[in-house]
Amino acid sequence: MKPVKVVKIGGRLMGAAEKLHDFLADFAALEGPKILVHGGGPKATELSLTLGIEPQMYHGRRITGDEDLEVAVMVYAGLLNKQMVAMLQALGNDALGLTGADAGLIRARKRPVKEVDFGWVGDVEEIRTGKLSQLLACGLVPVFNAITHDGRGQLLNTNADTVAAALAVAMAERMPVELIYVFDKEGVFGDLAQQKPVERLSRTGYQLLKEQNIIRDGMIPKIDNGFYALENGVRKVVIGGEKVLHAASRYTELVL
Amino acid sequence: MKPVKVVKIGGRLMGAAEKLHDFLADFAALEGPKILVHGGGPKATELSLTLGIEPQMYHGRRITGDEDLEVAVMVYAGLLNKQMVAMLQALGNDALGLTGADAGLIRARKRPVKEVDFGWVGDVEEIRTGKLSQLLACGLVPVFNAITHDGRGQLLNTNADTVAAALAVAMAERMPVELIYVFDKEGVFGDLAQQKPVERLSRTGYQLLKEQNIIRDGMIPKIDNGFYALENGVRKVVIGGEKVLHAASRYTELVL
Repeated sequence: MKPVKVVKIGGRLMGAAEKLHDFLADFAALEGPKILVHGGGPKATELSLTLGIEPQMYHGRRITGDEDLEVAVMVYAGLLNKQMVAMLQALGNDALGLTGADAGLIRARKRPVKEVDFGWVGDVEEIRTGKLSQLLACGLVPVFNAITHDGRGQLLNTNADTVAAALAVAMAERMPVELIYVFDKEGVFGDLAQQKPVERLSRTGYQLLKEQNIIRDGMIPKIDNGFYALENGVRKVVIGGEKVLHAASRYTELVL
Repeated sequence: MKPVKVVKIGGRLMGAAEKLHDFLADFAALEGPKILVHGGGPKATELSLTLGIEPQMYHGRRITGDEDLEVAVMVYAGLLNKQMVAMLQALGNDALGLTGADAGLIRARKRPVKEVDFGWVGDVEEIRTGKLSQLLACGLVPVFNAITHDGRGQLLNTNADTVAAALAVAMAERMPVELIYVFDKEGVFGDLAQQKPVERLSRTGYQLLKEQNIIRDGMIPKIDNGFYALENGVRKVVIGGEKVLHAASRYTELVL
């Protein structure tokens, strides 16, 4: 059985038209079953600014208010998702754009209110892998954005890295899965000079690089998601740049 | 074989939360295969105004520029489509939101430039009925908005009434189809007092009411689409209000 490849593309790459196109051409050329998950990109921030929506933050983390959710749904599930679907169709892939609400594929729940209400942020609860497998069996290429729903009519905004990991782990119960994070660097770097990404990163190495403050910020949840996937049935987890789907490319593989 | 019901809901109804909810509850209760097609609603105009996008018109017809298309994709394919999908999921229907680009279901072509370039307006060229039947066979309830694609990466804005008629006609080659237009009136009225809609409307009656200027404006393309469907294999075409899916409701049926 050919492994299903779950490929997550980051927001910054999506804002770079040429890199996005190169990446999509490589993705379209991938054989076997595959799932694309995409993030947001600068477009949502741009639209929020134009609409005069003030970002609400709590300790550096964003709160998703009513208007923020509307913008996220419009930009992620609308503009970006449909542009990517149309491009992939033009490249010969039978792409199908999806939120977690579509076909009830990803049910999430609103993050419980503790010291702060993060608003319409959703944590993944359940993935309908049977339905998703049916879509793959129809020859379709699912293209997910990070909008989910709670099953009671409410849309939610979920972290796209987490959605990719959750999809990979859930599908791993049915078939072999590989998870590939594509972002604006060639992989995880072991020093601040960033000449060449680490080829293999273990939990121990990760811990060390975090302590040295070499791995930090947004990389941390991405790598955490990657190890979570690897420890829960996903065969291979890779972090790389927009050329990662090329055989000769450099990248970082997470190892147990 | 149970007929597939293609139900088109108009933009104005979608702007009325309570009526929309009543309609969706009735739609969710419909048995057998069904397809929902929705229009735009006031939200797109509202967003365009907020963004300061000036509507370009030609003889009362709207031109779809780059920014107009972005707004249409964000509002129709993003916000409205996903809100409806989430609501239908909550009502127990396995809704799947779709543009014509998704699964390559509806290919359109940019309207040819004659005396004026209407911009990113698409006329339906081809519908992949095999793929759509597969989705129905999976127990899914397709929810279409009026965004289509040209198969070469370009999204297009298509009239939602026309999309509904084109879907109905295309599916009629495979199975029995009924087409139901739902809008903000109870049907087609035979006089200006609008007490009670005409129960059955023939081509002759239509012609007469048009000449008397009783049927006019947006009703004309809707009825034209309806007769086109009826003359091309669709079994039944009905025009009614948000309660039309209730058995006891009044409505207008087009007849040959």
